[in-house]
Amino acid sequence: MSGFFITLDGIDGAGKSTHLAFMQTWLEEHGVDAMFTREPGGTPLGENLRGLLLDPAYQPCADTETLLMFAARAQHLHEVIRPALADNRWVVSDRFTDATFAYQCGGRGIAAEKIALLENWVQDDLRPDMTIILDVPLEVSLARIEKSRDKDRFEQEPADFFTRVRAAYLQRAAEHPQRYAVVRSDRELEAVKHDIAAILSGCLNTWRTRSGA
Amino acid sequence: MSGFFITLDGIDGAGKSTHLAFMQTWLEEHGVDAMFTREPGGTPLGENLRGLLLDPAYQPCADTETLLMFAARAQHLHEVIRPALADNRWVVSDRFTDATFAYQCGGRGIAAEKIALLENWVQDDLRPDMTIILDVPLEVSLARIEKSRDKDRFEQEPADFFTRVRAAYLQRAAEHPQRYAVVRSDRELEAVKHDIAAILSGCLNTWRTRSGA
Repeated sequence: MSGFFITLDGIDGAGKSTHLAFMQTWLEEHGVDAMFTREPGGTPLGENLRGLLLDPAYQPCADTETLLMFAARAQHLHEVIRPALADNRWVVSDRFTDATFAYQCGGRGIAAEKIALLENWVQDDLRPDMTIILDVPLEVSLARIEKSRDKDRFEQEPADFFTRVRAAYLQRAAEHPQRYAVVRSDRELEAVKHDIAAILSGCLNTWRTRSGA
Repeated sequence: MSGFFITLDGIDGAGKSTHLAFMQTWLEEHGVDAMFTREPGGTPLGENLRGLLLDPAYQPCADTETLLMFAARAQHLHEVIRPALADNRWVVSDRFTDATFAYQCGGRGIAAEKIALLENWVQDDLRPDMTIILDVPLEVSLARIEKSRDKDRFEQEPADFFTRVRAAYLQRAAEHPQRYAVVRSDRELEAVKHDIAAILSGCLNTWRTRSGA
């Protein structure tokens, strides 16, 4: 693998969409060939699975939900992420395995060992080079979700679900501080962008050093 | 669990549909309250996943295919199989986990240990009480598949794929002879039905003994 793999994660309503757009602009301005993708999804089959996962008409049990997330992820890795990284490209994914630890383990109560086992299965030793966790207090997240017109199946969960999800993200970041950056996104937009730019700048340096460029 | 769980399995073209209809008639005639279901599928979400799995438009990698099979199975167990068995009903499933060992392990080369791990995860200690493997020589199976108008993604596989799938079924039956019955279905229809009726009769005795009836 010679590209660079960044994932952006965080609870619903943390501001991922806004800051993904900023990351795309920043990377373009710095001449980085980056592919932006998302989970669940990122492939034709995966986008179809995303539709099933977010649709409030279905009520998958926690095992089913977890297995579907990893089914979509395996295809995403196979079809999109690994080929792009092998081609020396950067990949920025809107959500990745941290979301499964946060939502299905933290939120639903699936054992972390089960998720780690599937992580090792589908990813082998591939891990993001950098994961940015956008973090906001729960009341900010809930207020933002409240504004969305059609809430998906996850957005319909009660507040204590998101309390557990947020705690799981923060715990994961605390356990692996070398490859996580937690960015509080309930601040002035420019301040958040400044922090993200600094993280991307650090990534660029790391990548250049690693590539011997 | 107080019901009785039978699965019918075997390579494409082994005659499952014909003999499922016979099993249904036989069980009705013997006063057994049996629910007939199938995999992949058996639930609204699972039937949707079945459509994705069989559609030649998608080319899931072997990991994705395996995870989707177990995602559908977890939902099938949660929504249909476990509640029916708990309700003292019989469940007859057209394919179950043996198909994953045969197609995804035998056919695609996924490690048996990975499949066993998912089997233990989603099923805990639930295993079929009886699995009937319908077996035919490859040329019979292929000739039957050849007749189908719209071949699904599996039916489009080459002959050596089905050679491996068939071998995996027979190996599995040989490893667990107490809960498998292999029935050669390239014989006179009445002879095959006779064997299946004998198996069902044995199941009925076992169940009555177990239930203390």
